[in-house]
Amino acid sequence: MNIAILGFGTVGSGVYKIIQNAKRQAQNLHVRHILIRKNKKPDLPEMTDSIDEILNDKDVDVVVEVIGGIEPAHQYIVDALKHKKHVITANKAVIAEYMDEFTRIAAENDAKFYFESSVGGGIPWIQGLERALRVDDVTKIQGIFNGTSNFILDQMHRTGKPFNEVLMEAQQLGYAEADPSADIDGIDVANKLCISVDIAYDLFIKPTAELPIFGIRNITEDDMTHFDKLGMTIKLMGKSHQRGNEFDYMVEPTLYYGDTLEAHTRDNYNLISLIGETIGTLKFMGQGAGQLPTANAVIQDILDIYQGKEHLKREFKSSFKFQPNLTKNDYIVRSEIDCSPLFKGFETELRGDYLLIHNIPVGEMHRLMRKVLQRDESAFMASLPTKKGGAAK
Amino acid sequence: MNIAILGFGTVGSGVYKIIQNAKRQAQNLHVRHILIRKNKKPDLPEMTDSIDEILNDKDVDVVVEVIGGIEPAHQYIVDALKHKKHVITANKAVIAEYMDEFTRIAAENDAKFYFESSVGGGIPWIQGLERALRVDDVTKIQGIFNGTSNFILDQMHRTGKPFNEVLMEAQQLGYAEADPSADIDGIDVANKLCISVDIAYDLFIKPTAELPIFGIRNITEDDMTHFDKLGMTIKLMGKSHQRGNEFDYMVEPTLYYGDTLEAHTRDNYNLISLIGETIGTLKFMGQGAGQLPTANAVIQDILDIYQGKEHLKREFKSSFKFQPNLTKNDYIVRSEIDCSPLFKGFETELRGDYLLIHNIPVGEMHRLMRKVLQRDESAFMASLPTKKGGAAK
Repeated sequence: MNIAILGFGTVGSGVYKIIQNAKRQAQNLHVRHILIRKNKKPDLPEMTDSIDEILNDKDVDVVVEVIGGIEPAHQYIVDALKHKKHVITANKAVIAEYMDEFTRIAAENDAKFYFESSVGGGIPWIQGLERALRVDDVTKIQGIFNGTSNFILDQMHRTGKPFNEVLMEAQQLGYAEADPSADIDGIDVANKLCISVDIAYDLFIKPTAELPIFGIRNITEDDMTHFDKLGMTIKLMGKSHQRGNEFDYMVEPTLYYGDTLEAHTRDNYNLISLIGETIGTLKFMGQGAGQLPTANAVIQDILDIYQGKEHLKREFKSSFKFQPNLTKNDYIVRSEIDCSPLFKGFETELRGDYLLIHNIPVGEMHRLMRKVLQRDESAFMASLPTKKGGAAK
Repeated sequence: MNIAILGFGTVGSGVYKIIQNAKRQAQNLHVRHILIRKNKKPDLPEMTDSIDEILNDKDVDVVVEVIGGIEPAHQYIVDALKHKKHVITANKAVIAEYMDEFTRIAAENDAKFYFESSVGGGIPWIQGLERALRVDDVTKIQGIFNGTSNFILDQMHRTGKPFNEVLMEAQQLGYAEADPSADIDGIDVANKLCISVDIAYDLFIKPTAELPIFGIRNITEDDMTHFDKLGMTIKLMGKSHQRGNEFDYMVEPTLYYGDTLEAHTRDNYNLISLIGETIGTLKFMGQGAGQLPTANAVIQDILDIYQGKEHLKREFKSSFKFQPNLTKNDYIVRSEIDCSPLFKGFETELRGDYLLIHNIPVGEMHRLMRKVLQRDESAFMASLPTKKGGAAK
């Protein structure tokens, strides 16, 4: 099978490395082209700066898009599919934005469009989710979807260092971008959650303003100490529930007791879970990023095409409705202003510097929290576990 | 697709239930026969006591063997394959014993022989392992493979109750058999580990006397208290390592620090992990037993056949050699006799009622422990974590 790799950054060079190493079934794969930027000097014979050379090469079977970002990635994917080439991408931003278009064009051109590596890196999450969906309705998804934010929270938890210091360390280690907002403001989680939700409920949603989203930018070392005293560990989670004909989805810092797997998912690892009707709870833990794990997931998609293992068909025609207030949670809020009047109508409790709000619908909580942020931009919130126990729940 | 179910116990009736429910892709499946025992009264129209009726029915595509035990399950599987029917089984004992024969006869008859549900119940472990093996050498496998023993250890840990009391509770709840030895002596773990090792290294090994195996029958509430004081949680593990041309495998109680996922795998859940060269660490957690999760895994195998998704080919021709002393561990031993002379030549440390043995080869440890047991049949041992930390390792 002949592969063209678009982009030769971390993941692209990882894919190249695994294919060059030619072990096991990767022996059946061959890298024919590598697309590099116009002004870059090619240092491998496969390198080219011409996308047209790749698109017009009839011997290219699979195009691997690992440029990242929206354009030109979006255009390249569309063009490759229209040239009847299978496309595999690790680019969650472009999939979350255009999954419906890619799916339609792929079907029209009898090409595959696979993206295992876009969510959970090396974790076979998309595959596990699609497999569960062959038999079950999936009623819950929740995950530590972002390795960078998990690394930051884990380091803060273990060292007691402030957010900014740990963020800088993460940047120095290459775990976080120079502009870290996608990771720490929950945007990356939102993209991965939307992709998962698209698959789980067979509908197409974008990470729009509707999505309740709250990141970890405002967390302080004092918050960490406080949560620690409560016996809880904080994680940035993407979550979704489905009930009847409705679903919700949210990105928010979430507290876990020490007897959960989430609380012990360390460093930049991911842990993603589903609940299915007959399968019950399934959890997948592994490296959510990193060169070789992510490249491995790309290779797995290529091998699925090579072996004719078709992924789940999506039509995005289900009638599930987004209901931001489908589930209720308890929350803890830290703010310099007295925000209890905002939450009147809900049961609240003042605990030192923190306000507990009980049993509030998720959408309502996020709406009110945006009002808190307008008056105190350093405010922080996290959802609380409903009760002690239930590692596997 | 037409199915015959051999045996109508917990798993068999679960498979029937999911197919009758006819949701999603299970809609494509149809139960044509259910084999029941000779003297049992049929209470469903599909029921028959004639295996020949099933074998000679040309319209049966898949035979699901969920009788359990060695015979007649072994004979039925062989006969079904020879009648060119695909066979799916949840029966780990019969697979561990005859995987080579089943694989050979299936290939000769162009039939599939799949067994996802035999290891890890509803967890897509076999599938995850086979997928990893498309790209990677798998260098380590370890798992909480047995839900019953995990339930017992977890209950002892949480309630402080003695082993026998918790075992009786497990029996009353239907988690443990009247004869619990397969679960508590590690035999069930050994079967599941052997199946995993067979796949991982493409060789055929049986759970013979060579396999270092130690169960949890001898653990006391005082042991639990001691491990708790050390900040550790005990789990019955199946483990295997591969290095160069050698591998080891072992079943033994293993202590984990509180920052590991293993320590927080509760109730009768399973947690199974692999380490691959490029994928790194992958962990799968879910219900290792139970009617619907196990039946779900059976249905997944049927759907793989229905969709033409072939599993990994095995030839059992690899040249890996079993080396019981491939890895070294630290161990803790409790015995009423002074067993330190037995372990001379190794670094030992007496800690109250417990003897620590450092850096001893696994095979050697198990060999010497058998000698301890000859003189003190109530002795207990567990392997120790090498160092604090490493939740994801």
